[in-house]
Amino acid sequence: MSYGALLETMGQVNDVLNAKSVLSWDARTMMPPGGAVTRAKQLATLAVIARDLLVADSTRSQLDAAEAEVASMESDSIERTMVAQVREAIDYHLRIPAKLLHRRTELGSTGQTVWQTARANSDFAAFAPILEQTVALNREMADVIGYADHPYDALMHRFEPGETVASLTPLFARLKEGLLPIVRAIADRPEPRMDFLTRAYPEDQQLAFGRLMAQKVGYDLNRGRVDKTVHPFEVSFTRNDVRITTRFNKNHMPMSLFGAMHEAGHALYEQGVDDAYTRTPLATDLIGLYAVGGVSFGAHESQSRLWENHVGRARAFWDIHFKDAQEFYPEQLGDVSVDEFYRAINRCKPGFIRVESDELTYDFHIMLRVELERQLVDGSLKVKDLPEAWNACVKAYLGLDVPNDAQGLLQDVHWSSGQIGTFCNYTIGNVMAGQLFETAKSDPVIAAGLEAGNYEALRGYMAENIHQHGRRYSRDELLIRATGRALDPEPYVAYLTKKYTELYAL
Amino acid sequence: MSYGALLETMGQVNDVLNAKSVLSWDARTMMPPGGAVTRAKQLATLAVIARDLLVADSTRSQLDAAEAEVASMESDSIERTMVAQVREAIDYHLRIPAKLLHRRTELGSTGQTVWQTARANSDFAAFAPILEQTVALNREMADVIGYADHPYDALMHRFEPGETVASLTPLFARLKEGLLPIVRAIADRPEPRMDFLTRAYPEDQQLAFGRLMAQKVGYDLNRGRVDKTVHPFEVSFTRNDVRITTRFNKNHMPMSLFGAMHEAGHALYEQGVDDAYTRTPLATDLIGLYAVGGVSFGAHESQSRLWENHVGRARAFWDIHFKDAQEFYPEQLGDVSVDEFYRAINRCKPGFIRVESDELTYDFHIMLRVELERQLVDGSLKVKDLPEAWNACVKAYLGLDVPNDAQGLLQDVHWSSGQIGTFCNYTIGNVMAGQLFETAKSDPVIAAGLEAGNYEALRGYMAENIHQHGRRYSRDELLIRATGRALDPEPYVAYLTKKYTELYAL
Repeated sequence: MSYGALLETMGQVNDVLNAKSVLSWDARTMMPPGGAVTRAKQLATLAVIARDLLVADSTRSQLDAAEAEVASMESDSIERTMVAQVREAIDYHLRIPAKLLHRRTELGSTGQTVWQTARANSDFAAFAPILEQTVALNREMADVIGYADHPYDALMHRFEPGETVASLTPLFARLKEGLLPIVRAIADRPEPRMDFLTRAYPEDQQLAFGRLMAQKVGYDLNRGRVDKTVHPFEVSFTRNDVRITTRFNKNHMPMSLFGAMHEAGHALYEQGVDDAYTRTPLATDLIGLYAVGGVSFGAHESQSRLWENHVGRARAFWDIHFKDAQEFYPEQLGDVSVDEFYRAINRCKPGFIRVESDELTYDFHIMLRVELERQLVDGSLKVKDLPEAWNACVKAYLGLDVPNDAQGLLQDVHWSSGQIGTFCNYTIGNVMAGQLFETAKSDPVIAAGLEAGNYEALRGYMAENIHQHGRRYSRDELLIRATGRALDPEPYVAYLTKKYTELYAL
Repeated sequence: MSYGALLETMGQVNDVLNAKSVLSWDARTMMPPGGAVTRAKQLATLAVIARDLLVADSTRSQLDAAEAEVASMESDSIERTMVAQVREAIDYHLRIPAKLLHRRTELGSTGQTVWQTARANSDFAAFAPILEQTVALNREMADVIGYADHPYDALMHRFEPGETVASLTPLFARLKEGLLPIVRAIADRPEPRMDFLTRAYPEDQQLAFGRLMAQKVGYDLNRGRVDKTVHPFEVSFTRNDVRITTRFNKNHMPMSLFGAMHEAGHALYEQGVDDAYTRTPLATDLIGLYAVGGVSFGAHESQSRLWENHVGRARAFWDIHFKDAQEFYPEQLGDVSVDEFYRAINRCKPGFIRVESDELTYDFHIMLRVELERQLVDGSLKVKDLPEAWNACVKAYLGLDVPNDAQGLLQDVHWSSGQIGTFCNYTIGNVMAGQLFETAKSDPVIAAGLEAGNYEALRGYMAENIHQHGRRYSRDELLIRATGRALDPEPYVAYLTKKYTELYAL
């Protein structure tokens, strides 16, 4: 009875957060330019309503009664899991003063504008005051949220619950040790043929081909749609409506293709959440106040990376589908062999820009950001010294001299939103994808499917082990249930080592 | 201070209602089919949140204090107007028990499904039980809302405040007396040439031409967009984002063209509301809980009809723009004269379907619905006797024998939504458009603009006299300020008499 009442309130919170997501999607895909100012107010109001409804006195009374009602159930029952998650979220939000939230919102909206100009002018000095405020604000946030060892842990919790500086340190060390020698060895090897990737690929064809590949891996368009945006993303309004966008470069077809497969991977996660969890805390991030079924940003990224890289950039995939690509692009790919295509889409070449980087160098972009953020938050690095520190990391990891701030520490939008602690999940996702993929393809049916262009068994494995559970189990609980152990970098390092050793005949 | 707090709360109510409108627009234009069930829950939650926020104890305290704060201001000041509107809306909503609201929502969702099947099978008996419940429910609604003379007045109030059975009776009598003889006289006259309207008109061309004509009359695409839907509509999310849709018949181009001009007329109203009223009660229907700047459904319809009919179906308009039409459709309109085109788009021919009817017969479809609804609500007509009564009215007004219920009393969606009292505004809009247009074109600058294809002066007149005021003045106050008198059918009757006497050489 009380439990039912609490669930109905959580359903309303979920409805409001989904409404907020619809308004965000619309703002990025459909809204005419004039609508921006009042749309921002509508989004802010929905955020406040969701938060206020979550922590309302009436909700807390429902929670108290619900806790008593489910106390005699198994501790890992769905009921107790949900009630515990609501309790944790309410405690979390009540620790953050309204003033601090308000300052973050304001900083986020000022920051966005200042950052855009600063990046356009490659002028870090113009953005530095905003970043200083952002660091100070996030440090305050960390202090009110609370942490055991390091304030950065409190900030990561919002995106990757359970991840800490202490847990990331050995993980990063292993990745550097395993991957840096490969990156360095490749530098001396000849480049693959690349000319055909920069031919003219008509946008309509790219959209259709991306959509086809997304459907091939199981994306359900009856509960989804594909649109064009400048920055691609996936967003869901319950499992019944999960949309993706992709971006286009007329002269670089892989951008839309792998963009579509990446976002389709995210979408499969949301489309696969158990329908019984719809509108419940198990399909709502009550800490981040975001209507999402995936249990962490890293777990989500594991699914996008798995379909984009382990499936979409694999030789087996193109042995099957290169003829589809040639049918779509007879003029552009007619004189290309599947081997040439496979090598081109997997070229490794250190660069300045994170979102343009290849599979092998990507994590170095993440590791340097996480390491610098951590130092900013604990005060061991000052904002004024950040450019030098950034450029030194790029030199150390990627062997490159950063030519200007736009291609350096101003490239990402993240800090301009007022948030710190948002980066580690990308690498967590890569590592988790490696671990899940290794286990999945040890199943002969899945392995045979991958060779035959049939992805249903792999999708079914992910649905059964990851997607369906929504937010019921933590990321590491999911990994232990699926692979027998918590997050482990070895399969990922082994996968990249094997792939690139073969590709570049190291 | 209290007034400011009340306004901020009303801003939030407006934000939530606008969010609801975005979700509705999305559901009708973009949403994949799978999303329908959870979207309905999201919409229901937003409706409840808006209503609860409006009548919350905290809002009522703000209102009490605000009333005291503005008591010494002029009674027609913006401040006192807003506060009075909030008071009226809160009183209105508190009179309606939650149970009744809930029953209407349920009836609306069942009704929709039952009606669709009943209409497809042309089977009124299948829909009759729903309509009986709808009538009973609306009668209960009328009783709790309250009325002086007739329960139907209480129902119309939601859509056309101030309109009553007593005020409609003489209006309808005048329209019948003035227009019926013209309809009958036309029946004996030869038909215009119609063949070219049913040629193949490519959909993309129709969309582009409709969009061009909408822009010609002043629709601002920087604060709007045009999409395709089965049922065309206009919807606004503040004046800064006002969208229209239009529908297409490949073999009947006027449908998309006049659809676009009609919805553009609605859109001009919303785009023209004073920016100072954004997010205030003067841009929010707090009775209907709908984010809209127009003061009544009839006032809104006056703007759509004005641009669709008085401007868009006028000879002067096509003397200017027929060459644009011929440029868009050289094959379809190359052998057509402007005179033939003008006569074809104004053909008068009584038919069964309201939404397909011409300017002259349209109001008879409305009058019969209003008259029958009124009798259902006061009990003088039983649902079981409705088909016979409907068909008798169609015979009396339009001279036609209704062949089946699908083309008769099952044609409109309105009753299936659980609502009664929604029809009169269409005719009010026609009458009001006639009155406003007569006054507007007595201004020589406006008249010259109409002859020259420049609609800025007319749009400016409407913006100054109607649009900018949002919901500050009642419909009749607006009419008195603009034309010196309240709603008056004479200009409309005179306009139709002149137009059709000339067209058919009566």
